[in-house]
Amino acid sequence: MIGEPEAVAPGAPGATAGRPLVVRSRGELAAVLARAPRPLGLVPTMGWLHAGHRSLIARARAESATVAVSIFVNPRQFGSPTDLDRYPRNEARDLAICAEEGVDLVWAPGVDDVYPAGFDTAVRVGAVGRPLEGAARPGHFEGVATVVAILLGLVRPERAYFGMKDAQQLRVIARMATDLALATVVPCPTVREPDGLAMSSRNVHLSPTERAAAAVLHRALQAGRARRDAGELDAEAIRAAVRAALAAEPLADVEYVSLADDASLAELERVDGPALLSLAVRFGSTRLIDNVTL
Amino acid sequence: MIGEPEAVAPGAPGATAGRPLVVRSRGELAAVLARAPRPLGLVPTMGWLHAGHRSLIARARAESATVAVSIFVNPRQFGSPTDLDRYPRNEARDLAICAEEGVDLVWAPGVDDVYPAGFDTAVRVGAVGRPLEGAARPGHFEGVATVVAILLGLVRPERAYFGMKDAQQLRVIARMATDLALATVVPCPTVREPDGLAMSSRNVHLSPTERAAAAVLHRALQAGRARRDAGELDAEAIRAAVRAALAAEPLADVEYVSLADDASLAELERVDGPALLSLAVRFGSTRLIDNVTL
Repeated sequence: MIGEPEAVAPGAPGATAGRPLVVRSRGELAAVLARAPRPLGLVPTMGWLHAGHRSLIARARAESATVAVSIFVNPRQFGSPTDLDRYPRNEARDLAICAEEGVDLVWAPGVDDVYPAGFDTAVRVGAVGRPLEGAARPGHFEGVATVVAILLGLVRPERAYFGMKDAQQLRVIARMATDLALATVVPCPTVREPDGLAMSSRNVHLSPTERAAAAVLHRALQAGRARRDAGELDAEAIRAAVRAALAAEPLADVEYVSLADDASLAELERVDGPALLSLAVRFGSTRLIDNVTL
Repeated sequence: MIGEPEAVAPGAPGATAGRPLVVRSRGELAAVLARAPRPLGLVPTMGWLHAGHRSLIARARAESATVAVSIFVNPRQFGSPTDLDRYPRNEARDLAICAEEGVDLVWAPGVDDVYPAGFDTAVRVGAVGRPLEGAARPGHFEGVATVVAILLGLVRPERAYFGMKDAQQLRVIARMATDLALATVVPCPTVREPDGLAMSSRNVHLSPTERAAAAVLHRALQAGRARRDAGELDAEAIRAAVRAALAAEPLADVEYVSLADDASLAELERVDGPALLSLAVRFGSTRLIDNVTL
């Protein structure tokens, strides 16, 4: 349902203490966007909003006349139905957070509003999507690139905001959005818990013991950074320092530790330019990723 | 270069007797689009404009405040460099035709304006792009879908106009544009020479003898339609009638004759709904396609 436009007061950053306008269908969205002040900033999310999302919204609020948040758990980017079913959802809480952060418009479509009848199009990004998460989760980035292309096509924001915690996703989306001329992608710093754990919707699945153990991710990345800061240029020595730090935590089941070129994500032998140090580690059935740039 | 906006007079259908504004780069295009009256109709072309393009422009002119024509010979949709080099070009003549037809804006980018540095994104349409031209020209429709997605992303027209002569291309583009929420695709009837040959930029390559022989394509399609109108429901009998008509012309080297479901393009056994009768035939080194809907 479309509320009264007067209730939204878009265009006045920070001035909207009321609830955001919530729309569901493509048609409602088009009608609302036709009267939305520009520039428009979009924060695409899968819901279960946390402090990381709040920081994206705050950045969008500072730069936009209208701030839109999309909430859509995209079935096409999950490798298994179990992983999809397990993804946490709480729309009422998400809407309250959006209201607190001064969001003007929340777009919370159903699957049929995102994927029209007969949907049969895929958007694929090449080299930067192949290693790391691309290798570990076949089809994942095609699902991500496709749904973000749809969201950007429907909302047509000037800028879209993504967090650096999902470093490879950020690069895949930025490549796609530049190549298809859809929007400017704004990378935003990872927000962390006091013990360094990166904010993630998946953290909710950690048991208290696993949650405590997961702090090792940031410690391990910092150990790698310290080696680099001490003058180490051999990439494998830095990866080994990260793996050694992870090995101190018995609950950490390491999937990969990568030190790659920051732009191409090709694994490095020698660190002689901007580099991305990243890892994927399982704690029980919960798979977490994190990264730092060197 | 950007001309004076006063020289364009967009918004007044038929009122623009002057030259259209010609822009080359992404940046110039964005500046011009920011002040273009809406709705905007785009006619994407590869240049060498003919009466078929004129009919697309006229339809766009009738429905739009601003009419844009893009002229871009897309290297990524040609199977061989020879075919690309052979594609006819004459920008001065194209611009004169655009002026005659009241076009407001011609976008004639270079390859680097369409494909930014590091370009690495592909848009792929599934089932409807696989048979017929998709099978005959591997990679062709991925090249087409990708470049049209870019053009629609950059120009952001309300409507884009495509001819029915390229029947499968039309279906691929309409699927993509709907799925990625980029624009409404408007199909426009094929324009034909007096002897029935469909207008095509490729016709310029036909020798006078081949040109005369090529009239068999429309006669053959009409023979198929006549069989259907006479009550024939067996698809193979209708295809056979088309092939028999083509066989009467010794210069016609038949690649395929298809009678397929009009929406899915799956080959039919029985004609019990809307169907597309299409063919691809070579005359010397020139490959022509044509179709009628039954």
